[in-house]
Amino acid sequence: MIKTPYLLFLGDAPDQLAAKVAIGIKDWRPDNAVGQYRMDGCGADLGLTDMSLVEAKEAGAKTLVIGVANRGGVISKDWKKVLVTALEEGFDLASGLHNLLRDEPDLVAVAKACGRELHDVRIPEIDYPIANGRKRKGKRVLAVGTDCSVGKMYTALCMDAEMKKRGMKSTFRATGQTGILITGDGVPLDAVIADFMAGSVEYLTPDNDDDHWDHIEGQGSLFHVSFSGVTMALIHGGQPDALILAHEPTRAHMRGLPEYQQPSLTALRDTALNLARVANPACQVVGISVNTQHMPDDEARAYLASLETEMGLPATDPFRYGAGKLVDALDAI
Amino acid sequence: MIKTPYLLFLGDAPDQLAAKVAIGIKDWRPDNAVGQYRMDGCGADLGLTDMSLVEAKEAGAKTLVIGVANRGGVISKDWKKVLVTALEEGFDLASGLHNLLRDEPDLVAVAKACGRELHDVRIPEIDYPIANGRKRKGKRVLAVGTDCSVGKMYTALCMDAEMKKRGMKSTFRATGQTGILITGDGVPLDAVIADFMAGSVEYLTPDNDDDHWDHIEGQGSLFHVSFSGVTMALIHGGQPDALILAHEPTRAHMRGLPEYQQPSLTALRDTALNLARVANPACQVVGISVNTQHMPDDEARAYLASLETEMGLPATDPFRYGAGKLVDALDAI
Repeated sequence: MIKTPYLLFLGDAPDQLAAKVAIGIKDWRPDNAVGQYRMDGCGADLGLTDMSLVEAKEAGAKTLVIGVANRGGVISKDWKKVLVTALEEGFDLASGLHNLLRDEPDLVAVAKACGRELHDVRIPEIDYPIANGRKRKGKRVLAVGTDCSVGKMYTALCMDAEMKKRGMKSTFRATGQTGILITGDGVPLDAVIADFMAGSVEYLTPDNDDDHWDHIEGQGSLFHVSFSGVTMALIHGGQPDALILAHEPTRAHMRGLPEYQQPSLTALRDTALNLARVANPACQVVGISVNTQHMPDDEARAYLASLETEMGLPATDPFRYGAGKLVDALDAI
Repeated sequence: MIKTPYLLFLGDAPDQLAAKVAIGIKDWRPDNAVGQYRMDGCGADLGLTDMSLVEAKEAGAKTLVIGVANRGGVISKDWKKVLVTALEEGFDLASGLHNLLRDEPDLVAVAKACGRELHDVRIPEIDYPIANGRKRKGKRVLAVGTDCSVGKMYTALCMDAEMKKRGMKSTFRATGQTGILITGDGVPLDAVIADFMAGSVEYLTPDNDDDHWDHIEGQGSLFHVSFSGVTMALIHGGQPDALILAHEPTRAHMRGLPEYQQPSLTALRDTALNLARVANPACQVVGISVNTQHMPDDEARAYLASLETEMGLPATDPFRYGAGKLVDALDAI
């Protein structure tokens, strides 16, 4: 568990896009983001208060989170100075970079001397069990996509936020690096050893109150041949009560696979539901989440309406138009 | 290379199935198996001569192979005593367990002191790529099971042997520790990092002659919630031209999952083929391999005949009755 709240380290990010991890944290856990730390030449701005390490410490920040996905994922010398000082000032460090904090001897030495923790959320920190498949209490929903990167994490976060707004019991369960940094906890599923994938998802979504919903962050796609095994483990480890179909309608081909086309939503529905019912015979497909960011408003609304007619399911872009319809459908289960 | 011949360590295996690594070596490389070592309470028996370490050493054994695939893959304290003594007696150790020999400080220390080697065949030896999904030349066949441990590896080994007997171009491609211990090469798929599973199968089964068959060793089952993600990666990474349905008809429930029943062969056929065609639209289900070891001959033959009628596919127990029917079906593609 990463200690919150965070000071978000933007470093010398060349532009706003490079600060995508920090933006995710600010968007989804604003209470966890007490301020931003920018170095000279930083081209990103979250609109948070710029703070020095001392100021952030006084404001209650516990962890300096590297919120920048820089090219190559390397920890530069300039960054290093700030990170070392942060450890000395009493901050833990958290990072999702390929360049692990624990592989930097100076950071390890200073962290040890100061009694601070280094969190590399890219790799698993515990030994997960093999899945036992036993039915767990509480309810779980998983978004499954026609492709990778179609908005499954945002769908889960939107539904979680809407449920919390309604006073329902709800938890977002992170399975990727950004999700883990947003919530401070989770399973970096794409880095888990094959045999323990489903077990790690069971571990992530344990018994809970009967009226509690886990929103499990989806990964990959059953139709994306590079990552379908990860998706399969999520479906069987998560034993979801409900599936949301996630789609991005403007893709020319599967992400990174120019020879592969996206499946239809009916193919996704039938394939995912068939497999999900192995682990949970009561599983239902309850709605469709469409990432309409590349469509104008009128086109997006028309597309969603036609999908609802065609599929007989509520369809929305939860980030653009709200997750109310999807939560209504979940609440009706 | 692992020094042969082996003494096969069965430990305190609860039943015969748990000793499947040792059984595989005995069946497919009998010259390498000089005897078996069983501890008190061992429920497995290979029919080999029971030997003490001293007796095995005198019989020429060079390596003690841990032939037990226990759940979780842990090296127990009771095992440890035998393994330490074996090193002291002059044996190398070989293991496919998740719990690596090299992670046990006492084994490492004793091995070093005695000049012995520790072989962990579980560990991937190279960094596998992320799967690219590109169509490869040559032909590939994969056995998919109604459950784990139903005979998928034996099916592949039998078909490979039959093809070689006929002078066809054929390679067995090991994806598990037993297969790797049998052939000396392969991908320890269940130990590969999630994101690279499908890529490791692509790596294992590269472009080949148009008339060459890769017999890819199957793992897990799409219907076994603990390991289905691994099976999924095999189907998409292997992009098989042909699937064989593998079944063991006497199971009371899914292996290790008392709350789960085996699927029907039609459910397996439809689910596996649907997913396989994402990677290879030309994929066909060409036959059924039944593990009839727990059925008398007349019952087994009657069962196979009824399956052929019911499913419209050739059905055999390739280990008991030969793989001819399956190879005929593959050769007709």
